[in-house]
Parts: sequence; structure tokens; C-alpha cells
Amino acid sequence: MRKLLLGMSVAAIALVSAAPGMAQTIGVSIPAATHGWAGGMNYFAQEAITRLESAYPDLDFVLATASDPARQVSDIEDMVATRNIDALVVLPFESEPLTGPVQAVKQAGKWVTVVDRGLSVEGIQDLYVAGDNPGFGRVSGEYMVSKMPDGGKIVVLRGIPTTIDNERVEGFQAAIEGSGIEIIGMEHGNWNRDTSFTVMQDFLSRHSEIDAVWASDDDMAMGVLAAIEAAGRQDIQFVLGGAGMKEMIARTRDNDPMIPANVTYPPSMIATAIEVTAVGLVSNAPVSGNFIIGSVLVTPENAEQYYYPDSPF
Amino acid sequence: MRKLLLGMSVAAIALVSAAPGMAQTIGVSIPAATHGWAGGMNYFAQEAITRLESAYPDLDFVLATASDPARQVSDIEDMVATRNIDALVVLPFESEPLTGPVQAVKQAGKWVTVVDRGLSVEGIQDLYVAGDNPGFGRVSGEYMVSKMPDGGKIVVLRGIPTTIDNERVEGFQAAIEGSGIEIIGMEHGNWNRDTSFTVMQDFLSRHSEIDAVWASDDDMAMGVLAAIEAAGRQDIQFVLGGAGMKEMIARTRDNDPMIPANVTYPPSMIATAIEVTAVGLVSNAPVSGNFIIGSVLVTPENAEQYYYPDSPF
Repeated sequence: MRKLLLGMSVAAIALVSAAPGMAQTIGVSIPAATHGWAGGMNYFAQEAITRLESAYPDLDFVLATASDPARQVSDIEDMVATRNIDALVVLPFESEPLTGPVQAVKQAGKWVTVVDRGLSVEGIQDLYVAGDNPGFGRVSGEYMVSKMPDGGKIVVLRGIPTTIDNERVEGFQAAIEGSGIEIIGMEHGNWNRDTSFTVMQDFLSRHSEIDAVWASDDDMAMGVLAAIEAAGRQDIQFVLGGAGMKEMIARTRDNDPMIPANVTYPPSMIATAIEVTAVGLVSNAPVSGNFIIGSVLVTPENAEQYYYPDSPF
Repeated sequence: MRKLLLGMSVAAIALVSAAPGMAQTIGVSIPAATHGWAGGMNYFAQEAITRLESAYPDLDFVLATASDPARQVSDIEDMVATRNIDALVVLPFESEPLTGPVQAVKQAGKWVTVVDRGLSVEGIQDLYVAGDNPGFGRVSGEYMVSKMPDGGKIVVLRGIPTTIDNERVEGFQAAIEGSGIEIIGMEHGNWNRDTSFTVMQDFLSRHSEIDAVWASDDDMAMGVLAAIEAAGRQDIQFVLGGAGMKEMIARTRDNDPMIPANVTYPPSMIATAIEVTAVGLVSNAPVSGNFIIGSVLVTPENAEQYYYPDSPF
């Protein structure tokens, strides 16, 4: 995902299971991370593997976490050469350097599941599991409209300029169309807390009245909240982030008026990819295709079920 | 699916499991059928339930097969009222009459998975599992191009005039564009064997030379093959059906030159829907969203893995 480039210092191959025989083996290759979205992704990958090993004793797993694309390539080559995997679940560090190596895995007759970030060549994978970026924007916009039935003035922080960001913003804008909600400022906070602090400082100095903020991401929301607090501004009614960061889900659950909701873009989609790949190995159910994980609105009513106390995210 | 209206004579509720306690219960509501695509769907639903009951002792299932929409509505109401289901997996007999009742299940706080045929109101279900109609056409067209590298004259049989049929044909036409393959006749065979026999008879009388047929469905392919045989024509090199009918997969597997390939549109997608719904109940993996099951090319090399000896389809 977009945050995978941050905080990758740990490179480790955990040989989770190595039982031979009739067992089938799934290799899971993901970027390493100890915190943030990618940290959550690591947590949920390990949790899914633990659960599946218990549920299906004949399934073995090889989990490799890489600190850079070159390491991920060698992890994957190793899985084929020495672990004889039957299926690969890969969240590519970057699209370009992983495309050839993953294509080689497919050509070797293995099942390939790609998660979140697509490869540079279409049609390589059997299964693609990804988030719904237009839906993320749409659900966020619909929430804004429901929360501000009489309209209002908002500012928007965008992510790093990418297709992902464009799809989100377009979905949001379509959802608020004609609602009376006016975007009085929109700048790139680059999915970064510090950048977003600065961007929000600028918004606050330029606009004496802001009703709400679509921060569009929980890291950016953290920066926005810090800027609002530092300025002592009382006019802003709420901030809508997104992705489902643990601390923000807790604030919604606990009825913090500034964080009344969240919109998921779950790092646990790696678990979905691993689980569905396993279904393909243990059952007759067809699992090739595209699985787009929906972005769900989190409110105080359902926040508890989106709060994972042991996850770093 | 499009064939569900055919051959529905058996109405039965199988109370597969009724264990009380901490267990979670999944209700599965599908149209009844003893043969054809819907017969296969019934087979794979039951097979998935049997597998999951064994894998997860805490999961219970209620399977109801209905012979008409009204019966399906009462099946679903009964699942909520007397079986206290936690989740519903439904393949609607028809969209209109099922939309309200399924919406009521969602409003009662249950998980809802809709399979293959969408409801009339968007956004009701948590998970939608369906086939890939544009992909079905594209894969079929790409196979035609690979099989006829120098081009040729083909006739095409279409299904019942529907969005499904339009998407398939458009995908096919885009895939053969510029290949030298010329469609010299295209008529609706309505996914019906007898109708397709008649349509193909007409094609044969009008065209003295036909290189291949895109029958676009295995039932239609059966009618086409019968017409070719009755006419004693030797010019047609092969017929490409689709959906993965057992008898046709066997002919591909056994290297029948007239049936060199198939393109899946698997009735076992009901099993995928049940399996993924179960994953949602037993794990932390998010499974809301849209899962579009890919249409896969079946050739003699991989046909064995798409042949299910115990399925009626």
C-alpha cells in the first residue's frame, strides 16, 4: 500500500511451518513494518497464518517480510526454489521490480494472489485482492452529507498524487455534489502527519471559519488535529480521517465529538487474501478473479468490531 | 443465474444442522434444480456446507432450496424468525421479489451475501459474488484468435437478450477485433439447446463454409453440434461453448477436436460465496465488497481439474 515505503527496517524470514508430505504450502511475501498501516498488515498476515495452520493441519505457510524490493524478489525466488510453494500471496513493495519475478512464479505453475498494489503487467495473477478507492471517497462523502444536512465549509487534505488519491477524491466530490457542502481549500498532505500539520496550519490562517475537515486518512487526521489544537480554534466541528487506525477507532468508539466516524481501508485485507487463497487449495470453490474489499463506515455503534487491541494499527 | 427458471420442481428445506449454543449459523437460500447450471449450483452448495461443517464444528448451516420466488421469500423469513441466522447467502430466484425481504434481513442486523443475480436496490448486501461476463466474452474471443491465427468465418449464438448477454458479446467482439476473424452470422439461441439447433440449421443452410462456431454456452453448443451432425457438414473445425458443463469438459479433456476448449462460468461460485462468508465469521479478515469470479480457459492440459464427476453439471 501507499505507506509501505515508510518504516521498513526489519527484514526477516519466518519459516512458520516446514512439515513435508502431502501438505500444500502457501508462500506469503510482504513488505516489513513494525508500525502504521504496513505494521497492521504484518500483524494480520501472521494472525491469518496462525489461524489457518490450526484450522487446516495440511496447509503449511512460509512468511517472508522484506525491507526493500530486491529482498522481496529474492524471498519469492527462494520460496519457489527451496520451499516448493503451491501458491504465492504477494503484496508488492513496488510494482515494477516485482512484476517479472511474480510472472516467473506463475509460469512455474503456481497459484498467484496479488494484494493491494497491482503488477505492471495485467493478467499475471489468478486472484487480485484490493481496497475500493472510489468507494472510500464515496462513503466518506456520504457521511459528510449526513453529518452536515444544511451544508457547510470544509477543507480537504489529499494524499500523495497518485491514481489512488484521484479515485478517492473524485468519489468524495461526486458524493457531496449538490449537498451544500463547499470545499474552500484542498491541498496535498501526502498521507503524512507532519506535512498535514503544516497544511492545516495554513488553512487555519487563511480561513476564519471552517466547519469540518476531510483529512481522508488517519495519519493526516492526526496532523490536522494537532494543528487545530495548537491554534486553539473552536469552529471546526469534526475531522474525518480514514483507514481504521486503532487510536482513531477508539476515539470514535468512545464518542469523541471531533472524531465521530472512520472509513475503513483495512490492512487486514492481507488476511482476506491469505484466507481466500487457502479456500482455493482446500475446497472446490473457484477463487480466481478480483475481490475488491469494501470501505465500511465506522461509527460509535459498530466501532468495537473494528478495534483490534493487539494490532499495532 | 439465467438458467434458474428452468427445471425447478423440487422444493425442500434441508435442516443441515441444528446445534444450539455458541455456534454461528449461516442460512443459504437458492433456487432448486436437479440438472443443468442450477443443478450444479445446488450440488456445490451442499458440498461446501458439508466441508465447512467438518472444518468448523461451531458453524451451523440452514440450506433451503425454493421452487419459486414466493417460496424463497418464505424460506428466508423462516431462517430469520425460527433459525436465528447470523448470515444469509442468497442467490435470488428473481431480483424484484427478493429485494425487500433480503433488505429486511440486512436491517435485522444480519450479514448478507448476494450471489450472481443482483438485487433491484444497490448497496443492500455486505458481499456480492458474481461471474465476470465481459471476461467470459474476452477469454472466449482470445481463444478464438489463438486457434485461428490466420482468421476465418464464424457464426455466433447469443443468449437471451439481457445485460449479461450484451456484456459477453461485447467482450468477445473487442477480443477478436482486427484478428481476421469475421462473424458472418449472429443470432439468439436463448441459452436453449433446441432453439440453438434450429438457429444452427439456418446458419448451415445459408452459409456453405463456416470455419468455427462461438456457441457461447454449453447447452447451445449441444444444439449446435447436433445440427452439424444432422447436416453432415465437415467444414466446421470446432465449436466453443462455455460455462463448464461436465460432458463438455470431458470432451475437451479427451481431446475431442470439435470441443477443444471451454470457458468457465462456474455454478460453484455459490461455494465461493458460502466459503468466504464463513471466513468472515471465523476470522478477522474483512470480506465485505465485490468478488468477481474470473472466467478461466479450460484446455486438455487443465481440464481434469475442472471435471467434477459427482456434480450433475
